[in-house]
Amino acid sequence: MLSVRFLRPARPVARYYSTASAKNNAIGFIGLGQMGYNMANNLALKAGRPLIVYDAVKDTLTRFKDQNKDVETASTPAEIADRASTIITMLPASPHVKEVYFGKNGIMEGLHKDSMVIDSSTIDTAVAKEVAAEILKSGSRALDAPVSGGTGGAAAGTLTFMVGANSQEDFDSAKPILEHMGKNIVYCGQNGNGQVAKICNNMLLGVSMIAVAETMQLGIKLGMEPKLLANILNTSSGRCWSSDTYNPCPGVMPTTPASKNYQGGFGNTLMAKDLRLAVNAAQDAHSTVAIGALAAQIYNQVSSTPEYQNLDFSSVFKVTIFGYCHN
Amino acid sequence: MLSVRFLRPARPVARYYSTASAKNNAIGFIGLGQMGYNMANNLALKAGRPLIVYDAVKDTLTRFKDQNKDVETASTPAEIADRASTIITMLPASPHVKEVYFGKNGIMEGLHKDSMVIDSSTIDTAVAKEVAAEILKSGSRALDAPVSGGTGGAAAGTLTFMVGANSQEDFDSAKPILEHMGKNIVYCGQNGNGQVAKICNNMLLGVSMIAVAETMQLGIKLGMEPKLLANILNTSSGRCWSSDTYNPCPGVMPTTPASKNYQGGFGNTLMAKDLRLAVNAAQDAHSTVAIGALAAQIYNQVSSTPEYQNLDFSSVFKVTIFGYCHN
Amino acid sequence: MLSVRFLRPARPVARYYSTASAKNNAIGFIGLGQMGYNMANNLALKAGRPLIVYDAVKDTLTRFKDQNKDVETASTPAEIADRASTIITMLPASPHVKEVYFGKNGIMEGLHKDSMVIDSSTIDTAVAKEVAAEILKSGSRALDAPVSGGTGGAAAGTLTFMVGANSQEDFDSAKPILEHMGKNIVYCGQNGNGQVAKICNNMLLGVSMIAVAETMQLGIKLGMEPKLLANILNTSSGRCWSSDTYNPCPGVMPTTPASKNYQGGFGNTLMAKDLRLAVNAAQDAHSTVAIGALAAQIYNQVSSTPEYQNLDFSSVFKVTIFGYCHN
Amino acid sequence: MLSVRFLRPARPVARYYSTASAKNNAIGFIGLGQMGYNMANNLALKAGRPLIVYDAVKDTLTRFKDQNKDVETASTPAEIADRASTIITMLPASPHVKEVYFGKNGIMEGLHKDSMVIDSSTIDTAVAKEVAAEILKSGSRALDAPVSGGTGGAAAGTLTFMVGANSQEDFDSAKPILEHMGKNIVYCGQNGNGQVAKICNNMLLGVSMIAVAETMQLGIKLGMEPKLLANILNTSSGRCWSSDTYNPCPGVMPTTPASKNYQGGFGNTLMAKDLRLAVNAAQDAHSTVAIGALAAQIYNQVSSTPEYQNLDFSSVFKVTIFGYCHN
Repeated sequence: MLSVRFLRPARPVARYYSTASAKNNAIGFIGLGQMGYNMANNLALKAGRPLIVYDAVKDTLTRFKDQNKDVETASTPAEIADRASTIITMLPASPHVKEVYFGKNGIMEGLHKDSMVIDSSTIDTAVAKEVAAEILKSGSRALDAPVSGGTGGAAAGTLTFMVGANSQEDFDSAKPILEHMGKNIVYCGQNGNGQVAKICNNMLLGVSMIAVAETMQLGIKLGMEPKLLANILNTSSGRCWSSDTYNPCPGVMPTTPASKNYQGGFGNTLMAKDLRLAVNAAQDAHSTVAIGALAAQIYNQVSSTPEYQNLDFSSVFKVTIFGYCHN
Repeated sequence: MLSVRFLRPARPVARYYSTASAKNNAIGFIGLGQMGYNMANNLALKAGRPLIVYDAVKDTLTRFKDQNKDVETASTPAEIADRASTIITMLPASPHVKEVYFGKNGIMEGLHKDSMVIDSSTIDTAVAKEVAAEILKSGSRALDAPVSGGTGGAAAGTLTFMVGANSQEDFDSAKPILEHMGKNIVYCGQNGNGQVAKICNNMLLGVSMIAVAETMQLGIKLGMEPKLLANILNTSSGRCWSSDTYNPCPGVMPTTPASKNYQGGFGNTLMAKDLRLAVNAAQDAHSTVAIGALAAQIYNQVSSTPEYQNLDFSSVFKVTIFGYCHN
Repeated sequence: MLSVRFLRPARPVARYYSTASAKNNAIGFIGLGQMGYNMANNLALKAGRPLIVYDAVKDTLTRFKDQNKDVETASTPAEIADRASTIITMLPASPHVKEVYFGKNGIMEGLHKDSMVIDSSTIDTAVAKEVAAEILKSGSRALDAPVSGGTGGAAAGTLTFMVGANSQEDFDSAKPILEHMGKNIVYCGQNGNGQVAKICNNMLLGVSMIAVAETMQLGIKLGMEPKLLANILNTSSGRCWSSDTYNPCPGVMPTTPASKNYQGGFGNTLMAKDLRLAVNAAQDAHSTVAIGALAAQIYNQVSSTPEYQNLDFSSVFKVTIFGYCHN
Repeated sequence: MLSVRFLRPARPVARYYSTASAKNNAIGFIGLGQMGYNMANNLALKAGRPLIVYDAVKDTLTRFKDQNKDVETASTPAEIADRASTIITMLPASPHVKEVYFGKNGIMEGLHKDSMVIDSSTIDTAVAKEVAAEILKSGSRALDAPVSGGTGGAAAGTLTFMVGANSQEDFDSAKPILEHMGKNIVYCGQNGNGQVAKICNNMLLGVSMIAVAETMQLGIKLGMEPKLLANILNTSSGRCWSSDTYNPCPGVMPTTPASKNYQGGFGNTLMAKDLRLAVNAAQDAHSTVAIGALAAQIYNQVSSTPEYQNLDFSSVFKVTIFGYCHN
């Protein structure tokens, strides 16, 4: 085991934050990427509260403001935290979250007591717990609320939020806000559990998709008609979402990405990211994910290949697992 | 590639069989094991046709006859084939099938023209095709019809039959007979496809179960309540039969084997057998089943361990994949 | 567990063979494929005993006879067995061996007592044991003696023979004959152990090669010079034959197949065959080979791809395991 | 791909360090754990230069000083950097390294120009590069020099150092110092390459060991005598360090950990750590390590099991890969 002799808290956060309570009614939103832009848009349209936004890219901020005249912009995460009583973040990965919360001009520098902070990024469970712990210590509510549903769901306001919170009460207070952006708001238990639920689901999903791909390829090579095979699986014990709702074999279901050259949907790069989070969390928890780790390698490989990385993750069907394309 | 210079048909079957058509109305049943005994029992009760049975074990034959007074017994497979126009076999594995069909006093020695021969054993696809080809050559109908549903389904007459046949017509003629023993009779296409459908489904099932086991273990170790986690998966894209109908975590669903110490259900040994058939078929077909092959190793290991081999296959949950029991 | 109720010996071999002892001094050789042709050639040149050969392909027989004037040909395996006191077979796979030994006009039909029968084919351990048992029953000596060293070693007479025999004495009596064809004649214990030794070695070899390929690719992508990396591995605990003698990275060693576009050497198809034998033997023996099974899938995939199937097995380096070519 | 919009350097290090050159001749050593204690001891005995040591645990410092009267102690890493011109660190993992170098009172706060800083910790390649870049920026020399050889090698001064450096010149200047602690000092190229070489070697080693374990188990179950099997492998193409120098089967070699109840040697926990570093580095580099990732899961599982975690990594032999002990 590692000695922890040298291991002090990775970041000894000073209590820079104000001890005054947040008095305003504004919502602050940090991170206007592909997902966040659409999510913030829905808040601007539906929440009925002042909205202040921040993004590191100036042009994005300007564009968002152009589309939403009443929205205000901030120049740092700290300013968002200072001016809003509800703060939502949507960032690409753990390092960005650490920087935006704990970095110079970060959220912790501006945060008031009694605020509510919701992180919708998909990040390491350990980082999510660390962020939540710091926020709780400061006297505010903390929620991790990663989403599924993609940019389509973000635009339509139909995302699923998997939410970790310090109490049912904290969850209840966040739910109405999340409902402006999503359809299913699922309480997953303590802080960090939103992340846990998401990586658990996506690990199972990622493995299932490869298993369906291997199975469909095998059946087809042994002479079965693809639709018939899918029908049999879907009414038998092999049934799963990857088979009955999102079948990876082109032509089996007319509206899946598989039938549209694997365009749209959930990209290989995102699946590779989520599986990596799952495998790392498993190692930290001393949990073994043999099949999950093999699936992680497969999506890692596919997402490292230019012609595949932006395709939907059901495109693993095309690579017959070890990489040779079917024509 | 292997040279085929020396490879003649594995068994150059002489046309020992009679060219006279089968005139009688009897059903012959060969193989009164745990599955076959129950299946034949249902035929005796429901089919309304003379039934003649054979098993290599004399005591089994006697016991079956004691329970079914009107049933007759035969002393060889050949005699069954001679005296019945419909012949059903239910045998443990490929070598038994080869022996019963092609061996001394085997079916081929007694078979008449225009008979119908149904093999419900789960065996190598290649062997199933070879058997069917020989029967078709002799002028009879051949069907491969492996089942799922276990001894419970066999007793209740609610099995699923996955049927390969030379034509829809052949399938239609067999269906009424199979309906005495099963509830779902699924046409899977050409001869051998019944086997293909079964191993495809069971490979997908076997992988899914391990994936659910890894996922549930991971989520629990990271702090989630098992039922809540299962609920989330079951309403998300990770949803599958192994999660929503047969969850492997004890206590999540009250009636699954997992909640009954993994008693009953579908044993690890049978899953190991089916996955081995799938992996071998994949290699013959030059299809890659990386995750299927890893799953095959896991069930092989579990089924080689005395305390696990007779448990339901969802008991992979208990071994955390690499074998250490949870207490 | 499978019931064995129906399982009689797969082939109840009648004692067709003569009970008269072999009186002649001839060597019979069956199977003049790429390996066998060269091996028989060395016997013709060096053994100093009459040589009778058989191959299912007439042209091959004629060609061999043209090159070796004193050699005689036979028209069946049975004739070889009848006319020679030492019989050597070199066949592609288990079904060919079964046919040549037990089929019509097979070896068992012509075999005399006190002969010596050596099978150099690489086949299922179970089949090798079955063949040996039948030969021993007939009163002759039986040896399984698969080789390594490729067609180059066969031509040069430098093969390694891994030999299973009923006794050290049987091994000693076969050794001088094998030495005409090989350099290392290794006694591996009881009948079947020649096959066991070969599949064990080749499974380890196949896994090692993939591991070296993954390692070299990783190191190179992380910025190391290939030769330097190989040197470090070769003087450290990662050292192995696949790294220090047969490195799969082009340019690291000037004379390996890797430096010659993976031409020559030991083909992917042969490695795939041997790994399949290993995995099947493991399943029969209830031994778990998780990494071996994954390696088997990788070679299966590579050997199913036209542009790779005839390349040396070190070409797995080029496919980065999951199949995308490096240029 | 992740947007890097929010990703600033994880830690924007201010140039706290002095711009005055280091004038003294002292060596500073930070981290007196099991490895570091022994390494520093050898420096005290052999280097002929003043030695100043630091450890976060006061008792350890006191104990070291008791054994080495002439050694001085420091109260922070910054003080070491200030008082020594050569600084060596030996820490458990990446977070400790970040803290000791960049944290409050860390090395960067005390470092002078023209110093030489050698980190012998085994850590993420990315972190090693980041550390080196900061040190180089400050005007000092930076080397990553992870070791192999264990506590035995540390005590005996026979470690192998795998060294990444900015130039051959930097390597040459560090070599005489490292030679007080080790026997083989290997130049691996640019900064970070010491780490790369180590994880590459250890990934290959970890996979090889499992492959040898699977192979020996398979051969033994199929009837081969273990020593004979090992001999055959060791003179064939399966030969590797894990087989011919460190065979995992008890009794095959008298002096390996396997023959001493797997005591001593290189623990499962350390192998699990190194394989995790390798898999993470591979994902960052978009390199696929399918077999490496499966091996990582196996060591992760074994190292999570109380009765195995402190055993030598060759104890994977005992768990037959999927976890059931042999007796």
